[in-house]
Amino acid sequence: MSTAKHASFDFTVDRLGPCRIPSPLQLQKHLFVDEDERTLVDCDLRSLTPGAALDDVPSMETAGPRSLIFHPHYLSRAAIVTCGGLCPGINSVIKGIVETLHSEYGVREIYGIPYGYAGLARPQDHPPRLLDPDGVDTIHMEGGSILGTSRGNQEAAILVQNLVNMRINMLFTIGGDGTLKGAQAIHQEARRRNLEISIVGVPKTVDNDIQFVGRSFGFETAVYQSTQVITAAHMEARSIFNGLGIVKLMGRDSGFISAYATLANPVVNFCLVPEYQVALDGPNGLLKAIERRFRKKSHAVITVAEGYGQHLFSDLPAQRDASGNLLKHDIGVYLCERFKAHFQELGIPVGLKYFDPNYSIRSVSASGTDQILCHQLAEYAVHAAMSGRTNMVVGFRNGNFVNVPIPVATHERQKIDVNGPIWKSVMACTGQAKYFDPSHQSRPE
Amino acid sequence: MSTAKHASFDFTVDRLGPCRIPSPLQLQKHLFVDEDERTLVDCDLRSLTPGAALDDVPSMETAGPRSLIFHPHYLSRAAIVTCGGLCPGINSVIKGIVETLHSEYGVREIYGIPYGYAGLARPQDHPPRLLDPDGVDTIHMEGGSILGTSRGNQEAAILVQNLVNMRINMLFTIGGDGTLKGAQAIHQEARRRNLEISIVGVPKTVDNDIQFVGRSFGFETAVYQSTQVITAAHMEARSIFNGLGIVKLMGRDSGFISAYATLANPVVNFCLVPEYQVALDGPNGLLKAIERRFRKKSHAVITVAEGYGQHLFSDLPAQRDASGNLLKHDIGVYLCERFKAHFQELGIPVGLKYFDPNYSIRSVSASGTDQILCHQLAEYAVHAAMSGRTNMVVGFRNGNFVNVPIPVATHERQKIDVNGPIWKSVMACTGQAKYFDPSHQSRPE
Amino acid sequence: MSTAKHASFDFTVDRLGPCRIPSPLQLQKHLFVDEDERTLVDCDLRSLTPGAALDDVPSMETAGPRSLIFHPHYLSRAAIVTCGGLCPGINSVIKGIVETLHSEYGVREIYGIPYGYAGLARPQDHPPRLLDPDGVDTIHMEGGSILGTSRGNQEAAILVQNLVNMRINMLFTIGGDGTLKGAQAIHQEARRRNLEISIVGVPKTVDNDIQFVGRSFGFETAVYQSTQVITAAHMEARSIFNGLGIVKLMGRDSGFISAYATLANPVVNFCLVPEYQVALDGPNGLLKAIERRFRKKSHAVITVAEGYGQHLFSDLPAQRDASGNLLKHDIGVYLCERFKAHFQELGIPVGLKYFDPNYSIRSVSASGTDQILCHQLAEYAVHAAMSGRTNMVVGFRNGNFVNVPIPVATHERQKIDVNGPIWKSVMACTGQAKYFDPSHQSRPE
Amino acid sequence: MSTAKHASFDFTVDRLGPCRIPSPLQLQKHLFVDEDERTLVDCDLRSLTPGAALDDVPSMETAGPRSLIFHPHYLSRAAIVTCGGLCPGINSVIKGIVETLHSEYGVREIYGIPYGYAGLARPQDHPPRLLDPDGVDTIHMEGGSILGTSRGNQEAAILVQNLVNMRINMLFTIGGDGTLKGAQAIHQEARRRNLEISIVGVPKTVDNDIQFVGRSFGFETAVYQSTQVITAAHMEARSIFNGLGIVKLMGRDSGFISAYATLANPVVNFCLVPEYQVALDGPNGLLKAIERRFRKKSHAVITVAEGYGQHLFSDLPAQRDASGNLLKHDIGVYLCERFKAHFQELGIPVGLKYFDPNYSIRSVSASGTDQILCHQLAEYAVHAAMSGRTNMVVGFRNGNFVNVPIPVATHERQKIDVNGPIWKSVMACTGQAKYFDPSHQSRPE
Repeated sequence: MSTAKHASFDFTVDRLGPCRIPSPLQLQKHLFVDEDERTLVDCDLRSLTPGAALDDVPSMETAGPRSLIFHPHYLSRAAIVTCGGLCPGINSVIKGIVETLHSEYGVREIYGIPYGYAGLARPQDHPPRLLDPDGVDTIHMEGGSILGTSRGNQEAAILVQNLVNMRINMLFTIGGDGTLKGAQAIHQEARRRNLEISIVGVPKTVDNDIQFVGRSFGFETAVYQSTQVITAAHMEARSIFNGLGIVKLMGRDSGFISAYATLANPVVNFCLVPEYQVALDGPNGLLKAIERRFRKKSHAVITVAEGYGQHLFSDLPAQRDASGNLLKHDIGVYLCERFKAHFQELGIPVGLKYFDPNYSIRSVSASGTDQILCHQLAEYAVHAAMSGRTNMVVGFRNGNFVNVPIPVATHERQKIDVNGPIWKSVMACTGQAKYFDPSHQSRPE
Repeated sequence: MSTAKHASFDFTVDRLGPCRIPSPLQLQKHLFVDEDERTLVDCDLRSLTPGAALDDVPSMETAGPRSLIFHPHYLSRAAIVTCGGLCPGINSVIKGIVETLHSEYGVREIYGIPYGYAGLARPQDHPPRLLDPDGVDTIHMEGGSILGTSRGNQEAAILVQNLVNMRINMLFTIGGDGTLKGAQAIHQEARRRNLEISIVGVPKTVDNDIQFVGRSFGFETAVYQSTQVITAAHMEARSIFNGLGIVKLMGRDSGFISAYATLANPVVNFCLVPEYQVALDGPNGLLKAIERRFRKKSHAVITVAEGYGQHLFSDLPAQRDASGNLLKHDIGVYLCERFKAHFQELGIPVGLKYFDPNYSIRSVSASGTDQILCHQLAEYAVHAAMSGRTNMVVGFRNGNFVNVPIPVATHERQKIDVNGPIWKSVMACTGQAKYFDPSHQSRPE
Repeated sequence: MSTAKHASFDFTVDRLGPCRIPSPLQLQKHLFVDEDERTLVDCDLRSLTPGAALDDVPSMETAGPRSLIFHPHYLSRAAIVTCGGLCPGINSVIKGIVETLHSEYGVREIYGIPYGYAGLARPQDHPPRLLDPDGVDTIHMEGGSILGTSRGNQEAAILVQNLVNMRINMLFTIGGDGTLKGAQAIHQEARRRNLEISIVGVPKTVDNDIQFVGRSFGFETAVYQSTQVITAAHMEARSIFNGLGIVKLMGRDSGFISAYATLANPVVNFCLVPEYQVALDGPNGLLKAIERRFRKKSHAVITVAEGYGQHLFSDLPAQRDASGNLLKHDIGVYLCERFKAHFQELGIPVGLKYFDPNYSIRSVSASGTDQILCHQLAEYAVHAAMSGRTNMVVGFRNGNFVNVPIPVATHERQKIDVNGPIWKSVMACTGQAKYFDPSHQSRPE
Repeated sequence: MSTAKHASFDFTVDRLGPCRIPSPLQLQKHLFVDEDERTLVDCDLRSLTPGAALDDVPSMETAGPRSLIFHPHYLSRAAIVTCGGLCPGINSVIKGIVETLHSEYGVREIYGIPYGYAGLARPQDHPPRLLDPDGVDTIHMEGGSILGTSRGNQEAAILVQNLVNMRINMLFTIGGDGTLKGAQAIHQEARRRNLEISIVGVPKTVDNDIQFVGRSFGFETAVYQSTQVITAAHMEARSIFNGLGIVKLMGRDSGFISAYATLANPVVNFCLVPEYQVALDGPNGLLKAIERRFRKKSHAVITVAEGYGQHLFSDLPAQRDASGNLLKHDIGVYLCERFKAHFQELGIPVGLKYFDPNYSIRSVSASGTDQILCHQLAEYAVHAAMSGRTNMVVGFRNGNFVNVPIPVATHERQKIDVNGPIWKSVMACTGQAKYFDPSHQSRPE
């Protein structure tokens, strides 16, 4: 990623106004972050213009507590909403927000909105729950979202009116790309009405596909869970003649989980991701590649991201889910059918075992260091909101937590660079190239 | 189960002939089991005729090493074959057979047949592998079958001829109902040709549905694995409004895994098994029951055994797999479709999450005490084979290992007694009756 | 175990009086157990006198719901107390008792006594907690005891007086040998005062050493946990030259956990249990045996039950814990010191890694089928108490749940039969005999 | 960490000579890293001099494959040695080195040195093992080191002579601080003798205490394992009156594991690390703090790094291990004794449960994303060695892999900044300050 590219982004974070209230945080002075502290977007000198002055290279606002804040804590009422699919660690983020607001800033009115934006749109059906540290003390050990989630956006005007009715001045949204765009709409509506509401997101994307936020929470846990399913697929595949284990993993637009799970459990022979489409048919297609693998080893394991191979459905009508996300056609089921038909036609026996662990992976609690990331993101989200920042998400880049404007974070999906080292490692550990192209010489002899 | 019923079985185990060779086992005398030692089939006095003499009540042959054996160990050549679907612990059984044959009896020629009966039918394609303790030392830590399995029976005449060609005098078959029937056919063909081959089975049935063998190996591990999927379904279901988690579990004819997993993780609201069919439609049907649950709790978790609800497909043609097993129609997928359609029609939102962890559960290695059971069954199978027993399987009943004739074990499938305590406990822990029938008063007030 | 031996026990269960109240359980008639239903103690015909009449062989009372009960449910007040060390599944038993009392029998006043008998002796310091199904709904997922435990017995007169003060007519005690003896003392004091209090125990012994109760709850989970520590010891031992991994496991008087964990993870080279003492010194002692193992394989793994080798401390004064249990000297620490000194003297390098996972194993929740056992024991304990049985524990034998008088259960500790099949399997899987005695030929050549 | 401080380091990596051989890697051109590519040491603009030119701020060499290399692959002989205590992921690093050397660079002679430097000093006792991809295919699933390790340094002259005898031109050392200093001594001796041997380290430090290498491999897994022991301690502590669970964790000089495990499982009440010594006695000491905690909550959980509280042993003589590391006195055992004595004196009952999971944590295999880090570090180590770099280790900083001179990496131990955000979070999540100092007001009211 070049400086040029990053230079085109406006990393300035929106603020409700100047901060004039001394922070109630009892911190040593040096732990407060200066208003204008920044973190370089890139620290690889190859990406930066040689000879440039430090001040000119792209940078992002460093996240953290400020010594002056915007919202008086004794008047503050915060709301937390969780949207979209499950992801390990949602409850840990909720816990972190509640604890930081309550114990660090002394905010006592913290509301959990049930069932995502849908619940915020209809509080009469789903009354908000008052949250405090005792109530969230052990929720980090549970998967799912204690608040409940929903998909789909709602009328921003209604949401803002309900925030006004509840006298909320800080809204924390835990959700993915669609949720963040919804947060931006809420922000715009609030601004139009001159409301001083901080809208701060904690990006939730088990696919790890949101730009500039570094590794997203839940990703580490999801990769770990995925490796266990891959082991199962491997055991099934090698226990039958021409056993074929197919593991569909999350990744609508980006194959990060498939790629990382493949690297973390390198018994996979083919890793299929949206960023690297391969033909199904033809002499160098996937079907022929599996044939070659069968001839050599009598079994194969495939990981496939759910967003892979959508061009194969080009003659089918597009569908969208409640959030407006383009619905992916089920590539796992499709591949199974094509594989069965193909090998039946050739008279080659095949023992196909299909794994779709999506929900099992999403619904566990965050483990180990992932748990810490959740809590930290929550803390930094609270610091940002208390200081009047809005229309932003927290991220982690180059060793620092940073505040990222929502428009920058949602500009486009982060994707695997198929010319970069991660994909090169995937190709090396699967050895798949040699099955697609038998003339391929991947190794010096 | 009454004495009368058990009295109708012939528990006599087939033998190749009298045992005349002193056992090479270096055991204290009392550890050898007498030729005629027996274990009562029932030890609940209610099941037995009052006043009866002990000698008259049904009993099974106690398994174990005999002081005289049939096959001379120095001339013996054993073969092991694994058939059918995976089950936790197959490798542990293989390890146990190899170790007992080799280290206890001194048998040095032990062959692993690749890919089940299919491999035994075509040794030219799948040459047998010589096995020894070093080669199987750590296989118990791996899932699957190191030998490979296949489904489907083969011509008994061909199998027997190949056993003769390989000079095998002991065949160990690890497999389920179909496999055991295949073993019986091999036995009959061998007997017809006056061959002295012991055919001894270790019953493999993750469904736990083979009669008189007690708890089958892998079942404990499968239940444990299933509970984790149920937790995932629970987390998904309660994280959305009207969330509905559906977990399809193994159990073609018997719902033991579904019932035990439900008891072991009692967050399940509906447990559906083949032995207890409930209507889908109507005022007391499943659809209405879920509606009632939604009104009360806004989410539900269902476990469903794969053999449940096959009557719903009565208008579809029957299909059979390679082993001749009647192929079940996919009840999980069917229920999902019916649920979606039903609630859509009613305008009730529903968030359906479907889990099909079949292969993930089957492919793990046996854990803890299940590991021990595998090894013990293997040891007792070897003792039986060395003493010239044949056409039998090993089982565990009333605290003793026993030798069970294949015709008895395969006479009919073991099923949950829906009038017995296990099913009563399932009904109690799910509380499902009150959703099916709102007038139901399951508890004293 | 011979009939003769069992014939000497009086298996008659104490009762408070005749049952006259119709059970509130809504069960089909056949699910009620007849008053006089019994289960044979032994069903191995070798253990029984040939030709005997069924009615004459030793039998135990079959557990289960009776159609007539003793305590009117609407007047009943139950108390639950947990004593002694932790064990996987305690909370599951508590949950089972509460649910069965409340939902099946309609008992509404169920008290949890904090911190064991100590809490029952001083309710003013530790007020009892009212328990109901909602409050215990998810406790089975947590380790430990939600009530808290303590060691040591208390004055029976005080305990009974407190039961009277609280108007308790059913006391459920979850604890081991000492706890059950305490329960018996409570029963005797209550009887002396003509009080109609049912005292029913659920035997808790992670060591699995209580007679006639079959496999005790928590044992399956403890074995599983132990196998993981053994794997760690194995990895440590083989990663250094002459690495020696020593795993001390539970087992004060009986080595069941050590033996079963060794069988379940057969990488152990020496299994040391109280029932099979081996000398430390001398040409056939443990130190020489390890030397031989080092020469052959350069590493070794040892499991040792905490009760092993207490004779080595014969010159030290005896100590007792608060429950009056003889305190074991720490054999793990002692062995480490002796090993270090021995090999240092010989100039043989040794890399000693000591594992004492006791508390880590005891504190987990019950897993899988163990979870079910906990709930069933709880149900049967409630059935027994409601029908006026007292001074008894529930057990599981030969496929049936049974009611066992406390004096029988605590008569002596269950131990591994070192002449039986389990110990023989341990010797076979460790191969330890050949290291103790190099002339030993365990295998035919 | 200020620029000034980092400016004092010489980040120049030693090289054996100019690279003239075209790399055999079949990479797209842009995937090769330029010889002079660098990564900024700090990218937080606060740490950097305002207005500075980019070229003047401290930077490190970016790691990665170069288009020209130093060692001809067809003549190369590599050796791998693992030293010191176990750490999750050692085998994954070995696998990664072997695969990259063999499959990417075509090096065919790769030797595993048994038992660390001790084995390299005495190859006659411990002959090196030839390694290839097949032999290391599944070792990443096992804990420990397949090569074996040892502690202690050896005479550099002897080690170098043995490298010469074996004609090794690349030595990969997987080890910690002491091992790296040993590697530096080997490098110096080799340079003195004008030998062209690349000495490249993969830093192994489960304590995460080596500077400039970012998160070290195994750390993520160790934190995850530690959280489970903390849960056990919590269950034990809260199940008895005044239960006190003490978990000793790794961390000789730095408390990273204790701090991160505490954050990842925030049931801990006191976290004790070497960087933040607290008094044991006195009104604000640890003993009084636990008293206060007991009065409030009746139980407590403590994590303590092994390097904590060494001043308490100041009157005992210092001891060193075979590697010359100062041996720590056992703070865990010491605290247990002090706690017991203290509360006994006060007549306060205490239920002390001590956990020392050191070896259990170190001996597992790396999980999930940790597995990937191992492989990547291995790849970059190979790239560095092939290009003639030496006396260096690979690290990961600010999103890039970097080459770090050994003298810089071992200059001093990385420690927790007790004035930084991590320690502040630990203080917040434990709430321990208020127990040490009852007047402490950590939260706004």
